[in-house]
Amino acid sequence: MKSVKRITILGVGFMGGSLALAIKKNFPGIFVIGYARSDSAYKRLLKSNIVDRVEKDLGKAVCGSDIVVLAAPIYSIIDYLKKIPFFLKKEAIVIDLGSTKELIEKEAIKYLPKNAHFVGCHPLCGSDKSGAQFSTPDLYKGAICLMSPDKSNKALQKVKSFWMRLGCKVILINAKNHDKILSSVSHLVHVISFSLTGFVPKAYIKLAATSLRDLTRVSNSPAGVWADILISNKKNVIRDSEKFIKGLEKFKELIKQNKKEEILKLIKNINKKQKIISALH
Amino acid sequence: MKSVKRITILGVGFMGGSLALAIKKNFPGIFVIGYARSDSAYKRLLKSNIVDRVEKDLGKAVCGSDIVVLAAPIYSIIDYLKKIPFFLKKEAIVIDLGSTKELIEKEAIKYLPKNAHFVGCHPLCGSDKSGAQFSTPDLYKGAICLMSPDKSNKALQKVKSFWMRLGCKVILINAKNHDKILSSVSHLVHVISFSLTGFVPKAYIKLAATSLRDLTRVSNSPAGVWADILISNKKNVIRDSEKFIKGLEKFKELIKQNKKEEILKLIKNINKKQKIISALH
Repeated sequence: MKSVKRITILGVGFMGGSLALAIKKNFPGIFVIGYARSDSAYKRLLKSNIVDRVEKDLGKAVCGSDIVVLAAPIYSIIDYLKKIPFFLKKEAIVIDLGSTKELIEKEAIKYLPKNAHFVGCHPLCGSDKSGAQFSTPDLYKGAICLMSPDKSNKALQKVKSFWMRLGCKVILINAKNHDKILSSVSHLVHVISFSLTGFVPKAYIKLAATSLRDLTRVSNSPAGVWADILISNKKNVIRDSEKFIKGLEKFKELIKQNKKEEILKLIKNINKKQKIISALH
Repeated sequence: MKSVKRITILGVGFMGGSLALAIKKNFPGIFVIGYARSDSAYKRLLKSNIVDRVEKDLGKAVCGSDIVVLAAPIYSIIDYLKKIPFFLKKEAIVIDLGSTKELIEKEAIKYLPKNAHFVGCHPLCGSDKSGAQFSTPDLYKGAICLMSPDKSNKALQKVKSFWMRLGCKVILINAKNHDKILSSVSHLVHVISFSLTGFVPKAYIKLAATSLRDLTRVSNSPAGVWADILISNKKNVIRDSEKFIKGLEKFKELIKQNKKEEILKLIKNINKKQKIISALH
């Protein structure tokens, strides 16, 4: 990481802002530039002291940086991939923090110059908060960071070291498998949480116990981020939704037909699987 | 509550055991009897020191008590309602802690003698733990206790004072409305959580972030308790499941058709509703 002098973050929200703070904490020698698209974001970012320099001009933000981080909703990341090639210096590394990887990888291959290195990244550290004002330097500490490597091993090692120095546990996974697995363990989970909050009659909420609060917590996640995740991974999310609905229908039928013994057996097996999930955290 | 000298708890698990400890803490003058159906439960309960006396004989356990608490799965509560009438003293108060109220109320009216007073109760304080060994005297402190009153106002006031002395906020609600509302804010929520845990491929769990853990936490809830809740409230649970599935199907269609603007609008409205839910706790 000694060769990295300057990092640019495009999209300084909660994830990007926390990354800027983490870089300043763990790599005090690296200069961090934040790009602000709007005047209001520019002023806010300037005041917040999260990055070393704020730029309103995309060219000035990207030009000369060793690593460019795309920390924005999926389709904004893709817009950046189209706009930054002209400004990238030779051998620049481009990484993203998007929650889906297949489409971004495809677009990165299409738009980025051959002398730039792209590595898709997905740090698994919650995004139900939004806004740079919540940024925290330790967001990435202890988190799993999934990396979908391209063929350039040189950039891969550098990016891997980068995440590890921030305290991440790095796991390599190809983009296709990433999207398939994340659909099941995160994207569908959010669709369910959104749908449950949508379903609950407002007048009933005052009688809710902790179970409703637990299952609806992530339905606080930002619309701009999640509309893009769900649409960009729709193939997997739709298949998983259908499979989940089938399971729910089956459960409903057991209830309808008073199949107590089968319900007991089913829930006991589910209890065992839940222990595996809760043991992980 | 001065006239209450003796309380019997039928079913000393997590809820019943915690109630026994709460009574001993808040009403040191009241003698608490716990009924143990099996030899092993009898030995465990004797050792645990949770109740003042353990009884293996249902008649001896119930006889002479001022309040009899049915703290068991719904259909076990109904079994007790059939078995205890012979042993109840005159003017005894019978309460239950079941999570559905309509069926229990109906059976209580059918089986209990006219000189006994039944008040259906449902303290909203989680049941994903099971077993008397987890009992805690403060489980009920600060919890909402729903009460479905019968016509006997005398018992109602006494039972209300009882819960309030344990630190509960009492809300009166008729059994039918109780079951309708609880289906939406709790029973369906558990069916969704059970189904999600059932759905998730085991091999994917290691890449799960906090959202999956949150949504699957209550799928650890005990099978024996939940099979009875879901079957005894199946009319409401099935209707709610169908309504929830319809909402999920609608969401899925928006994703399928790339309706980004509509998804943004939907999630933003959901975000607002989520704030109401999270503000309650």
